[in-house]
Amino acid sequence: MQKQLGAEALGTFWLVFGGCGSAILAAGVPDLGIGFLGVSLAFGLTVVTMAYAVGGISGGHFNPAVTIGLATAGRFPGGRVVPYIIAQLIGAILAAAVLYVIASGKTGANLGSFAANGYGAASPDGYSMLSGLVIEIVLTAFFLFVILGVTHGRAPVGFAPLAIGLTLTLIHLISIPVTNTSVNPARSTSQALFAGGTAISQLWLFWVAPIVGAVIGAVIWKAVGETD
Amino acid sequence: MQKQLGAEALGTFWLVFGGCGSAILAAGVPDLGIGFLGVSLAFGLTVVTMAYAVGGISGGHFNPAVTIGLATAGRFPGGRVVPYIIAQLIGAILAAAVLYVIASGKTGANLGSFAANGYGAASPDGYSMLSGLVIEIVLTAFFLFVILGVTHGRAPVGFAPLAIGLTLTLIHLISIPVTNTSVNPARSTSQALFAGGTAISQLWLFWVAPIVGAVIGAVIWKAVGETD
Amino acid sequence: MQKQLGAEALGTFWLVFGGCGSAILAAGVPDLGIGFLGVSLAFGLTVVTMAYAVGGISGGHFNPAVTIGLATAGRFPGGRVVPYIIAQLIGAILAAAVLYVIASGKTGANLGSFAANGYGAASPDGYSMLSGLVIEIVLTAFFLFVILGVTHGRAPVGFAPLAIGLTLTLIHLISIPVTNTSVNPARSTSQALFAGGTAISQLWLFWVAPIVGAVIGAVIWKAVGETD
Amino acid sequence: MQKQLGAEALGTFWLVFGGCGSAILAAGVPDLGIGFLGVSLAFGLTVVTMAYAVGGISGGHFNPAVTIGLATAGRFPGGRVVPYIIAQLIGAILAAAVLYVIASGKTGANLGSFAANGYGAASPDGYSMLSGLVIEIVLTAFFLFVILGVTHGRAPVGFAPLAIGLTLTLIHLISIPVTNTSVNPARSTSQALFAGGTAISQLWLFWVAPIVGAVIGAVIWKAVGETD
Repeated sequence: MQKQLGAEALGTFWLVFGGCGSAILAAGVPDLGIGFLGVSLAFGLTVVTMAYAVGGISGGHFNPAVTIGLATAGRFPGGRVVPYIIAQLIGAILAAAVLYVIASGKTGANLGSFAANGYGAASPDGYSMLSGLVIEIVLTAFFLFVILGVTHGRAPVGFAPLAIGLTLTLIHLISIPVTNTSVNPARSTSQALFAGGTAISQLWLFWVAPIVGAVIGAVIWKAVGETD
Repeated sequence: MQKQLGAEALGTFWLVFGGCGSAILAAGVPDLGIGFLGVSLAFGLTVVTMAYAVGGISGGHFNPAVTIGLATAGRFPGGRVVPYIIAQLIGAILAAAVLYVIASGKTGANLGSFAANGYGAASPDGYSMLSGLVIEIVLTAFFLFVILGVTHGRAPVGFAPLAIGLTLTLIHLISIPVTNTSVNPARSTSQALFAGGTAISQLWLFWVAPIVGAVIGAVIWKAVGETD
Repeated sequence: MQKQLGAEALGTFWLVFGGCGSAILAAGVPDLGIGFLGVSLAFGLTVVTMAYAVGGISGGHFNPAVTIGLATAGRFPGGRVVPYIIAQLIGAILAAAVLYVIASGKTGANLGSFAANGYGAASPDGYSMLSGLVIEIVLTAFFLFVILGVTHGRAPVGFAPLAIGLTLTLIHLISIPVTNTSVNPARSTSQALFAGGTAISQLWLFWVAPIVGAVIGAVIWKAVGETD
Repeated sequence: MQKQLGAEALGTFWLVFGGCGSAILAAGVPDLGIGFLGVSLAFGLTVVTMAYAVGGISGGHFNPAVTIGLATAGRFPGGRVVPYIIAQLIGAILAAAVLYVIASGKTGANLGSFAANGYGAASPDGYSMLSGLVIEIVLTAFFLFVILGVTHGRAPVGFAPLAIGLTLTLIHLISIPVTNTSVNPARSTSQALFAGGTAISQLWLFWVAPIVGAVIGAVIWKAVGETD
């Protein structure tokens, strides 16, 4: 299981480094910056690329909610859930640390929210806690539903990493203004640790909502997607 | 047929939640917003991702015009058209309802047109009813033509969901300024119900034009695409 | 050959309607417009989608320079070059006509250059005739080189339409500011007919350069890409 | 080996012509320009398209760091490293020369940094040498890790060019503001030769960091990705 945990740690490092890195370094550059569209693409591509690279080793979760959802659906052994989540957290935190070093090297650096997730006053575009809760639950539920569908034997072979990564891009296209988009407690935790303050006090929502959503998505898939 | 209808309802929920959701929540955020390009990508990715996930269950229509066009081309049993359309409408309306809850949670929320379709004074960039009618018919005709082509036995295996979803992205890249892009009566209906007013009185066009276009596309495919 | 010519006409209609249509209708909308990036994506997606749909019927050229380049490389029968080009021109001109109707339906419509190609004073960003000539030759040469490579027996099966369409996206990302990007005499001709004036007097370059480039690309492929 | 070297030269020409060309010609056009997002897409698509076209001939490296990393991992014969790098440099320099001709043909042309890489005062958004060093090492390490993963026998067949090219897109989405993104000494060298000045004096970093990163990536892959 050593190699699986290594793959999960590296993959989650890549997700945070690429997704949050593009948000911190490149989204807001005047005139030429990549905006929310570029950040959405970056998050998705971290999963597309790494799932093709190590999907055959660890399954390519890179996200505690995904691991829990797959276990709920009976596609992942329950005994490996905790080690996977620990590996994901380690990868995410290391990525945030390296990003911190890089971002601090800018003239007049101001790390702002460091791409942390938030609601209410910490929502990028001023959405309430309820809005944040609903959208994170709904999006993670559909994320798991799609993951379970495209990795099912019925789906075309080879396209799962592409479809899963592009689902994450889509999720960001919808929800960055609401919560800065989590659907991934590891990604929320790493950024909250470095941002501190509100990001820490609101972190609970970005564990609860993605996990609740993931379980719902797995249950819906079992009802709709499994053939008798 | 229970599972097929469930898949259609979920897929159409995803199409409306992702496509219209990105338009309502993320398109117009100052400086960082995703614009029409991001909305076009979001609509297409809802279909790419969900067609890979449930295409093997229901065929992945998510659109009454697609269902009618496939039936016209002899690729879908006529007796299932009405149940499919009802499932699609239910999914679309539920998605709009959830979007309504989320969007209402913004400080100083102004839901505007709620991503409804329109022409004349309700066209995003001021195009006439005739322009709207022509572009919706032409785009839906090509949408069906491409769908029938890429799902034909002659086309490469596994790429159909990608090609179909990217066709929807392309369609939006062309026509959002004209009608806010429908080509899908379910998506138009759900948003009109919540927007009310002009969106309701103009809704007829977004049933008539996509269905007329879909039938034309199916007929052209039969003439050009079917080998003797 | 009827069906092949029908497929080429429809495919070239789609290329012009989608590519030039997105440029005319959606590129320059204030704040939300899709810009050159969106237009580049649209041109590429017309080819991705239509090549998956009818590539098995006609080969999916949609471009006189492609047809000539493929014939030069010995991949297409010389006797069919002229009929293919005529079908492509018919499709392109019909698309421009429909676009003209749609675009004219805008309040205070100003069709501007109607997405015609140009150099010198008619270059979008003020590039000389020499710059236009060089870039059109180089880009069409690489376009043919990639087409010949990805449709070779050595390349992975099924990816050719994706790779070819994305090459057209890339070509537009580079060169819209220089010539508004042709690499396709049919696309240049249809827009010049409706734009008139300078677009007509400069049209020669957008036949000469793409065809010269296509022949060069075919010759280079024969030298580098064909195994002994 | 003639054809392999020809393929590497052409592929690296395409990478520099497309990636740096889009940056020089199209990124900064007012209102409609493609920005860093478009440039990121362009760099990635040069690799997607050319790797599908000539991957079967030369392996599709187009980058000295990739060649060295693959040799480190035992996937490429050490004796061919130097000829490959020479071919890559020739292709890159020729591309920069053609770009120079095209860009000089603009009214009031100002070639600026000619898309050269830099740090400190030459960093696009003002990042230090340390930031540049760290990000180039990390990104090239992951680039090689992904390349080694997606070309491993365990990964789905046919998707490697797509995954590798999209990794390059992702890398640019993150790091253009820091160093203008190298991860490729050939691309840095060609632009420095034409830009001169600071670009030449800083060129060492864009050989050292990508090569160090590539070796690290290969070593990590050997530890995590190779099954016993």
